[in-house]
Amino acid sequence: METLSTAIAFGGTQGVYRHASATTGTAMTFAVYTPPGDGPFPVLWYLSGLTCSHQNVMDKGEYRRMAAELGLMIVCPDTSPRGGDVMAHDDDWQLGCGAGFYLDATTPGYQHFQMYSYLTDELPALLGAYFADADLSRQGIFGHSMGGHGALTLALKNPERFKSCSAFAPIVHPSTADWSSKALRTYLGDDPAHWRAYDAISLIEDGHRFDAFLVDQGEADSFLHDGLRPWLFQDACESTGQDLTLRMQPGYDHSYFFISTFMDDHLHWHAQRLG
Amino acid sequence: METLSTAIAFGGTQGVYRHASATTGTAMTFAVYTPPGDGPFPVLWYLSGLTCSHQNVMDKGEYRRMAAELGLMIVCPDTSPRGGDVMAHDDDWQLGCGAGFYLDATTPGYQHFQMYSYLTDELPALLGAYFADADLSRQGIFGHSMGGHGALTLALKNPERFKSCSAFAPIVHPSTADWSSKALRTYLGDDPAHWRAYDAISLIEDGHRFDAFLVDQGEADSFLHDGLRPWLFQDACESTGQDLTLRMQPGYDHSYFFISTFMDDHLHWHAQRLG
Repeated sequence: METLSTAIAFGGTQGVYRHASATTGTAMTFAVYTPPGDGPFPVLWYLSGLTCSHQNVMDKGEYRRMAAELGLMIVCPDTSPRGGDVMAHDDDWQLGCGAGFYLDATTPGYQHFQMYSYLTDELPALLGAYFADADLSRQGIFGHSMGGHGALTLALKNPERFKSCSAFAPIVHPSTADWSSKALRTYLGDDPAHWRAYDAISLIEDGHRFDAFLVDQGEADSFLHDGLRPWLFQDACESTGQDLTLRMQPGYDHSYFFISTFMDDHLHWHAQRLG
Repeated sequence: METLSTAIAFGGTQGVYRHASATTGTAMTFAVYTPPGDGPFPVLWYLSGLTCSHQNVMDKGEYRRMAAELGLMIVCPDTSPRGGDVMAHDDDWQLGCGAGFYLDATTPGYQHFQMYSYLTDELPALLGAYFADADLSRQGIFGHSMGGHGALTLALKNPERFKSCSAFAPIVHPSTADWSSKALRTYLGDDPAHWRAYDAISLIEDGHRFDAFLVDQGEADSFLHDGLRPWLFQDACESTGQDLTLRMQPGYDHSYFFISTFMDDHLHWHAQRLG
């Protein structure tokens, strides 16, 4: 593992790291904020949205002050493999680089797109090996938009691993949203039955459960009615008894202005559950 | 005045605006954060450093949460004129676009570089005309690096206008630092006597005073010994009775990781003095 940069912030250390991933077959970059004080620290994973890398939330997420105060280690992976022979789709922001959708692709040409396994197996193991202060017995996960989809689906599929989950403006039903169904078809093939394992609502329909979700959604989000539709998630949770706190936030859009505003609330949500 | 974007953040509004400046003879862009609640609000000016625009602190400065809480309007101008026939010096980050040094240039070819007059006359007047909630009887100023130089010199030259001033890692003696003396020579000509009006230490030597300064400086700042040298400012203040709180911050560098860490302290410093 290579350290690309470190800086002191709010008494802790914000680092950026790169390693050769056996899972994706590419170099992968990720960011870790280690709070000040003595570890071990609970590990909170933040998954980013379409077009983003580890960098956007590091620049604009405003998580370090409260993470330092609460003693949370924040891990921010990239959103897809990049470089070399990775199918980039530079002409389409909803496919390819920056659009990994936190799944394991099965279609020809997309062999590098294995973000689900990367986040489930390889990166946690690397974290445990290189970050002595990471307490992997206390993990939470959250994310934004496509990363909210990632957080909800990873939590529903791994409730024994994650003790807490929340999301900002998540894609809750990617199988039926224009900006995401194309990706599922491209990475997983034409049969929608294969998409259900990477769709939060389908997972709930198929019996998966998680302790409790917190979701914030801006009412002025331009993707609200076509891509996000949190009411579908609310219906799925209510009809199955899945615990959900959905907060509609008047005036807020889809940007990091929205995310940063409610970041403290989410960090508190996780800290309460991670001890 | 044209509104380029607005977004709700921490209950207030982060906007970006553009207007045709008579002072610089160019279009000028600036950002304003208006806190939630009923105005009028004190106006706190943030001046950015070399290579920056209004955007960097808007992305990375983490000022909105506390500005919302304290009821401060935050105004972030650009660092120079840009576009058209403006001398850009794209090959030199210490001259031209992004390097206006908050002065009024007098040399041939630099007629657009009038940031001192722009910030002293035109932009405050525009703010008063278009932002009904801006209370121009309560103004403070702060900034980073070149913008720290701007804040200190504007405050020393206009103590009747500004009630508060602080700086992150300011250039305190640009006349004698490699990365800034070239700019003073280029914009103001070869005679160092003409540079004194834009040099905080020279201004103090020449009898200018301000109520009190707060300066934070990272000890791991790579520009500390050549470009910044806060001890020179401390000496000038101590030998003249100028009030200065200088805080050396172990481990911190020159980046927005440093600025964001101490942003809350600076906003409190200003709020206390702006009422």
